Amino acid sequence: MEEMNVEKNDLFDYGLKIYQYKNKFKFSLDSILLAEFVENKLGVNTIVDFCTGNAPVPLILSTRFNCKIIGFEVQNEVAKIAEASVSLNNLDDRIKIVNANLKDAMEYVLPESVDVVTCNPPYFKKNDTSLINEDYGKAVARHEIMTNLDEIVMTSSYILKNKGCLYMVHRPERLEEIILILNKYHFVLKSICYIYAGLNKKAIMVLIKAVKNGQHGLIVYPPLNVLDYKSYKHIFEGDNK
Amino acid sequence: MEEMNVEKNDLFDYGLKIYQYKNKFKFSLDSILLAEFVENKLGVNTIVDFCTGNAPVPLILSTRFNCKIIGFEVQNEVAKIAEASVSLNNLDDRIKIVNANLKDAMEYVLPESVDVVTCNPPYFKKNDTSLINEDYGKAVARHEIMTNLDEIVMTSSYILKNKGCLYMVHRPERLEEIILILNKYHFVLKSICYIYAGLNKKAIMVLIKAVKNGQHGLIVYPPLNVLDYKSYKHIFEGDNK
Repeated sequence: MEEMNVEKNDLFDYGLKIYQYKNKFKFSLDSILLAEFVENKLGVNTIVDFCTGNAPVPLILSTRFNCKIIGFEVQNEVAKIAEASVSLNNLDDRIKIVNANLKDAMEYVLPESVDVVTCNPPYFKKNDTSLINEDYGKAVARHEIMTNLDEIVMTSSYILKNKGCLYMVHRPERLEEIILILNKYHFVLKSICYIYAGLNKKAIMVLIKAVKNGQHGLIVYPPLNVLDYKSYKHIFEGDNK
Repeated sequence: MEEMNVEKNDLFDYGLKIYQYKNKFKFSLDSILLAEFVENKLGVNTIVDFCTGNAPVPLILSTRFNCKIIGFEVQNEVAKIAEASVSLNNLDDRIKIVNANLKDAMEYVLPESVDVVTCNPPYFKKNDTSLINEDYGKAVARHEIMTNLDEIVMTSSYILKNKGCLYMVHRPERLEEIILILNKYHFVLKSICYIYAGLNKKAIMVLIKAVKNGQHGLIVYPPLNVLDYKSYKHIFEGDNK
């Protein structure tokens, strides 16, 4: 990984290192908050992270979960640096990166075998006009070119155990669509946390937890103002939940 | 309205008076916030308020909208004091109270004739155990005994013009169900505001605006902490939107 266009960064304040392409989509706050939103729970043996990118979510989850974590990344060169980051942190025995489209996850993971699925998906629809003139690799990370919400939720439903949890970060604009698709695949929305950059502004992100065949009854967590925090470690433990 | 069990109160700081039964369901912050959440818009000729109770929503709306407002209230004795409150404020020419179940609204209102529907519905399902031992009048206001979400949204869809707006206040726990029912009757969720009593606590209420045959794209407004305000007048104008 000594190529000119790759840099080695600290993964925020987690004591981990992460490789990133200088000119590609980098890990962001979205992934950190998504990983933090996953609840500590006993009996979690397998976590699958879709759209894993350079693997920030598996890396962060490895600090709290001593279980098998599988990251799916469709872009070959991104999957490569994800693997390199895993090795760099000596986590090869716990984190496995699969270079495949998540819709083929059933070829790698048994049905109803997974406890938790996480996903920081492309936020924008394929026909979004901002796609024009964008680097293809970045476009794949931001736009629903190689996958879409329906495929993500359908595949999650296939690999998750009954009552398994799907965690996702997304844009508030698409919440309605997310709920309709979750419902289509028998997920129940259990909790939502809206993320604000200033509490006098509109929400910029939404974190959701859905449960396969879960019981109805949604909790809306306190608003989370990212400007209030210097560290996001354990941000959902204590007062915020 | 000189009966012993009726009292005449100020309708908060709106300069209006409202009759209330001493022992029945009284107007609450929910209704005030719902009325405030209705956007000022030109060309609003008819507003219908379902589950109007003693008419706080029509009364507050009359301070901002110079149009016809029709309140539906199923309980006869509640509809009576609603009418008395309307007269007390000299608003008989603008606010009409109909003592009927909202599901029969089509007998009083033409299809596709209404610009805005507001509703502060019963929050709890009929089978909710808290129903036991409750005063029947209060139970009707709090539980889905005489109406339910599906009937409210179906009837709203029937009487609203194309692109007409449905405003509702509800409990966050039922947001998922609300969205599914809105979708069933071709409403699109346009904006949400979560209400908190302290920003370190879970949301206590949700205000929604849905548009009949509207375009997708949801806005989540800044969190509204009711403890921050002494007056709720024009609370959604300015910084909060």
